[in-house]
Amino acid sequence: MNHIPAKDDISQAHERIKKQIHKTPVLTSISLNEIFGAELFFKCENFQKVGAFKFRGASNAILSLPDSEIEKGVCTHSSGNHATALALAAKMKKVKAYIVMPRTAPKIKQDAVKGYGAEIIFCEPNLKAREEALEKVIEKTDAVFVHPYDNYMVIAGQATAPKELIEEVPGLEYIIAPIGGGGLCSGTALSAKYFGTGIKVIGAEPLNADDAYRSLKEGSIQPSINPKTIADGLMTQLSEKTFSIIQDNVEKIITVKEEMMIECMKMIWERMKIIIEPSSAVVLAAIAENKEEFQGRKVGLIISGGNVDLINLPW
Amino acid sequence: MNHIPAKDDISQAHERIKKQIHKTPVLTSISLNEIFGAELFFKCENFQKVGAFKFRGASNAILSLPDSEIEKGVCTHSSGNHATALALAAKMKKVKAYIVMPRTAPKIKQDAVKGYGAEIIFCEPNLKAREEALEKVIEKTDAVFVHPYDNYMVIAGQATAPKELIEEVPGLEYIIAPIGGGGLCSGTALSAKYFGTGIKVIGAEPLNADDAYRSLKEGSIQPSINPKTIADGLMTQLSEKTFSIIQDNVEKIITVKEEMMIECMKMIWERMKIIIEPSSAVVLAAIAENKEEFQGRKVGLIISGGNVDLINLPW
Repeated sequence: MNHIPAKDDISQAHERIKKQIHKTPVLTSISLNEIFGAELFFKCENFQKVGAFKFRGASNAILSLPDSEIEKGVCTHSSGNHATALALAAKMKKVKAYIVMPRTAPKIKQDAVKGYGAEIIFCEPNLKAREEALEKVIEKTDAVFVHPYDNYMVIAGQATAPKELIEEVPGLEYIIAPIGGGGLCSGTALSAKYFGTGIKVIGAEPLNADDAYRSLKEGSIQPSINPKTIADGLMTQLSEKTFSIIQDNVEKIITVKEEMMIECMKMIWERMKIIIEPSSAVVLAAIAENKEEFQGRKVGLIISGGNVDLINLPW
Repeated sequence: MNHIPAKDDISQAHERIKKQIHKTPVLTSISLNEIFGAELFFKCENFQKVGAFKFRGASNAILSLPDSEIEKGVCTHSSGNHATALALAAKMKKVKAYIVMPRTAPKIKQDAVKGYGAEIIFCEPNLKAREEALEKVIEKTDAVFVHPYDNYMVIAGQATAPKELIEEVPGLEYIIAPIGGGGLCSGTALSAKYFGTGIKVIGAEPLNADDAYRSLKEGSIQPSINPKTIADGLMTQLSEKTFSIIQDNVEKIITVKEEMMIECMKMIWERMKIIIEPSSAVVLAAIAENKEEFQGRKVGLIISGGNVDLINLPW
């Protein structure tokens, strides 16, 4: 697909992937509503397959390709949720997946990717090594490259999560989505425009990885240099496709402090009894740092995933 | 109520408390089903108000008393979930609650109880001090004592959780419930008998707090002496009322090792993305230590609560 997803593209994506994704629940919490003085609706993609919204985009990318194009398999570079998402979606389609991962990728992710039958190609943990490794894979295998977010079919797939939220909760005034590479955030902006009425979409990102904030301010994609944040899913920078959608359709970017993200993550664990990953806590932190702005408002929050390494628990 | 709850008593309890409890979800996990080779249905009382099934029993006890009896308030002794449950149920009924707590009770529980407007009476952390403190409260206030489990209305209230599970999931062959004082387990046994067909109810308890196991074996209530377990909700011993129901209606007690409980707790956090407390992990651990017995079976598991002190998290 060579154009920004239209309303029909997102509706079709939803139909296409419905049979293999979970329709995740929208949860509310009386105590969090009281604490923040707003009506909060959490779209829980931590309950999505592979534990993250990424499975929607990967599924749509794979299912929308004709069999003749995809018979040699798919490939990508990722050490995160897109890696497991693409591996599982490929397994379901019965095609091969090749995943380029830095040698330093967490063992738990490596195991998950292998568990879905994908082949891992290790590289040094830098951009150049990653791109070279990926090129070699494509040369050798003819697999189709599915970019984690600079891909309209991926964006259309991610857009189905906010679409479900909007359809389930009428009257939302805001939706806040985490912003890393921008796939989820741009999909949220499109779905709000197509399926909602006057919903303002806000991207939330760590202050310590504020490249999206700077990009919107400068009017051009700014690099993410040495981001130091607990939100490991939000370290990447925007791409051409996501930046252009976000520039035109997102109200603004809110940046939040590390301590507030950690506090909000624990608050959600404790009050809502659900596991969310640090990158997801950024959306509640955006409210916590701007309580007045959201006072009395009806706000949707996209909980992007729940993959936390529990190795360090005290038990 | 002076008799073991009959089918009607539990149905009436359910009607009585329906307006103020959550109908909690029943969750499943494809990956846990694969790991254990069984069909597992988790009744998630961690999503109940105050984060535990205890709110059902406390609500039923309070709502079934005539206004004239309850106008002076209610009281109990508990440092755990029953304390917050009774405090909230009393607040909703607009009566006073007096909670006797050991000085050593976790700050987070003290704050929760106070947050619901209850009065805390501190005592030394031993049985004698607790009973004396409670007697004084009753003398002084005329409040009605609501025992955490040796109370048929409390048992009937707890029985509504397994009742919902049985009504939602037809064909269960087993239900496993944690067993501490026995309120939940005896309620589960009654609901299985009244609302199910041939469901075997099993109590699960830590090997390090195996008083229920020993009690059934000896045919009389055995004390829980110095229990050392991470499952802080399962340290109490059975009472006359719970023991007699359990003796007649529970298939058996399975005891499990501490390490297995911890492993199963992490597995549920990681795979299901929900927070459960250690006392709840005992039900999955019972399966993990007896995989053959449950092979291919359709098993309900009562997740009793989700109140974990997150102070020690590595972040």
